[in-house]
Amino acid sequence: MKLPVSEEYINSVLKGLDISDVSQTTIRQCVSVSETIERQIGEKFIHLELGVPGLPACPIGIKAHKEALDKGVSSQYPAIGGIKELKQNASEFIKAFVGIDVAPSCIVPTVGGMQGSYNLFLECSQITPGKDRILFIDPGFAANHTQMNVLGINSESFDIYNYRAENLRPKLEEILSKGNISAIIYSNPNNPAWICLSESELKDIGECANKYDVIVLEDMAYLCMDFRRDLSQPFQPPYQPTVANYTDNYILMLSASKIFSYAGERIAIMAFSPTLFNREYPALKERYGIGKMGDNYILTYLYCASSGVSHSAQYALAQMLKESTEGKYNFVKYLNEYGRRAKMAKDIFLKHGFNLVYDKDLNEKISDGFFFTAGYNNMPNKLLLTYLLRCGIIAITLNTTGSSQNGIRVCISQLNTPEHFNILDERLAMFKQIVG
Amino acid sequence: MKLPVSEEYINSVLKGLDISDVSQTTIRQCVSVSETIERQIGEKFIHLELGVPGLPACPIGIKAHKEALDKGVSSQYPAIGGIKELKQNASEFIKAFVGIDVAPSCIVPTVGGMQGSYNLFLECSQITPGKDRILFIDPGFAANHTQMNVLGINSESFDIYNYRAENLRPKLEEILSKGNISAIIYSNPNNPAWICLSESELKDIGECANKYDVIVLEDMAYLCMDFRRDLSQPFQPPYQPTVANYTDNYILMLSASKIFSYAGERIAIMAFSPTLFNREYPALKERYGIGKMGDNYILTYLYCASSGVSHSAQYALAQMLKESTEGKYNFVKYLNEYGRRAKMAKDIFLKHGFNLVYDKDLNEKISDGFFFTAGYNNMPNKLLLTYLLRCGIIAITLNTTGSSQNGIRVCISQLNTPEHFNILDERLAMFKQIVG
Repeated sequence: MKLPVSEEYINSVLKGLDISDVSQTTIRQCVSVSETIERQIGEKFIHLELGVPGLPACPIGIKAHKEALDKGVSSQYPAIGGIKELKQNASEFIKAFVGIDVAPSCIVPTVGGMQGSYNLFLECSQITPGKDRILFIDPGFAANHTQMNVLGINSESFDIYNYRAENLRPKLEEILSKGNISAIIYSNPNNPAWICLSESELKDIGECANKYDVIVLEDMAYLCMDFRRDLSQPFQPPYQPTVANYTDNYILMLSASKIFSYAGERIAIMAFSPTLFNREYPALKERYGIGKMGDNYILTYLYCASSGVSHSAQYALAQMLKESTEGKYNFVKYLNEYGRRAKMAKDIFLKHGFNLVYDKDLNEKISDGFFFTAGYNNMPNKLLLTYLLRCGIIAITLNTTGSSQNGIRVCISQLNTPEHFNILDERLAMFKQIVG
Repeated sequence: MKLPVSEEYINSVLKGLDISDVSQTTIRQCVSVSETIERQIGEKFIHLELGVPGLPACPIGIKAHKEALDKGVSSQYPAIGGIKELKQNASEFIKAFVGIDVAPSCIVPTVGGMQGSYNLFLECSQITPGKDRILFIDPGFAANHTQMNVLGINSESFDIYNYRAENLRPKLEEILSKGNISAIIYSNPNNPAWICLSESELKDIGECANKYDVIVLEDMAYLCMDFRRDLSQPFQPPYQPTVANYTDNYILMLSASKIFSYAGERIAIMAFSPTLFNREYPALKERYGIGKMGDNYILTYLYCASSGVSHSAQYALAQMLKESTEGKYNFVKYLNEYGRRAKMAKDIFLKHGFNLVYDKDLNEKISDGFFFTAGYNNMPNKLLLTYLLRCGIIAITLNTTGSSQNGIRVCISQLNTPEHFNILDERLAMFKQIVG
């Protein structure tokens, strides 16, 4: 068997995996589909589906990680609120690259951004009786929606595609004025669309958060990766844009997974607005005997979830943050490689008749970075993905990210040799041919 | 100020920390009390409260951990179900020391036993509509009760003190026959009482689990630490006793924290009965699109909770398990040190008029190990702890562990110099004197 494989063959593979609609699969089922086909045709797919680091882990982290192991930290439970060095260095890093002041005491490590968001959702849903819903500004990270389902928390969401610029605020007001939303979540730069919110959009979100007393969970997994501007100079503007400039109701989520390619060690930091960290919530006091949001996050939620984060990995992250802040390690420059790959991949997609789905930030073309979104003549998701699978290309469709647009998310991290780009080019040519 | 401090002084410290009843504090508040007093009197307490390793981390783990970091695993997300080596080696380790067969595919790493139990409680409460409660055979680990509160899951519990031997089964039947219990949890050896369930007790639990279709969560945090028998020889009886010999409805929880003194790295393994791992639950299928208990645990619950466990720590644990199984590293012999310390500490307590609260397994004296329980003429908990604090000794009271007895839990791990035992002796003499 060789590429392109037949539609009947794809359908038989899906049937064998108990998948009725390929565009409705989870990312892991999606991987199973490609693995099955790869085994049977004896040829590798072009993998655009997983958002995994495509660069080696930051060596500064590895060195500090090993030193901590040698010091013997493995036998001691880590402080659940985080080791002192990590809290201090994270505070300085945030000042250097985001330009805001967060006290070390308000910064808490978590077992990846995943544990961070999970427990923030849980706490936010419990702080104010009646305000138990989370608002998703989509498209977004599908796993965050799964977290809602696991925890039995209700959510609302809208696709920002139709609500950029001056349309954003009325939409937020419409939803928040119902009074049942405790928190808003979005990622910026955005996974999967790689759009970046403008200062005016962030201002609208921040002002609405103040007006309706809602907490903003700002996912900065891709911090400083809007490569259109040089965000790489510590303590010098321009800084990573943030809602924190417009509200004290913020919590920033910074994962080491992409910034330092440290995904394997599962570590992130949650940076609470000091106002929010120290705010007393009577419902928490009644339920847990602790009233403050930050103390509860640490002593109740994170204690129960895993009793803290790998002690040695905390030293690794502390050191990577420190050397970045001191200008000894330019993590932004290093990650620029993703921008280069995105540009090349986009050009190939466009050459074969694809278009970018989320294409602009207001009047500016979106940045080249970790992800982009691509559609083909508004072809429906199921059909589009089936054609791509027939040609040996795998990706996730936009409907799984909370988007209402047709298209796929392209993650460029695994395109890490020139050969990959040649194969992508050949296979998209093949796609164009069989689509006809 | 010097020891013994006055009752008025203790009360003023408690008031300053907003604690109304010292016997109702969490372990962390308890630590704050001692820290405050230590600062003010300029003298260290005897710390019997925290269940932390009192030995260095296993060097085999540290070596393998560093090698994994050097291999570059930090940039790659770990398989959520665990790396192949860990699953394989854990399967062999369980065969060697517990004497049962669990396939590698049914073994899953978690971010400490804490993440393991949290997500097992959550899954068990969701598998069968109407069976949404967890039964605690107490005394037990207080944090497990907090997990219930955080997740909003209902529980039942009873103090095993009055239900040993032939009294256990009728008590279990009474509760399980109501039909609303999905899982039973207990630790064996027991935290805090260090009692060990007999084969006949385990058989009763197992048979009840079969009869009422209930899952048994067996916490083996202190695996093979019943030092009355030599459990240290791989593949040779006697083995660690387990309910798995009497039911297929079991999940074993083995943490690396105490067994390998690896608490800082937050890693444990959950070993599912193969029958249970592969069992289909319609309620799970409907909610998550995945029906099997084990697949859901990995792809739904653990994926959402933290997307897996530190990649490098998985290699560390894999190697420690391997060398233990091969008889190259005798972890049981190494941990015998805890037995030695417990014997010495018990003798001092008994000398000063204390008694062991949970003192026997049927007709046999309890083992010397990580914990024991001590009371003084049935003195009520609040009074007992206040007197101990006045004499510079800190511990947690039994009521916080779900026990209905009067007494304290003594953890001997931090008694790690001869000097500590001398001071304990002096201070308990002081206790006896002021109690009068």
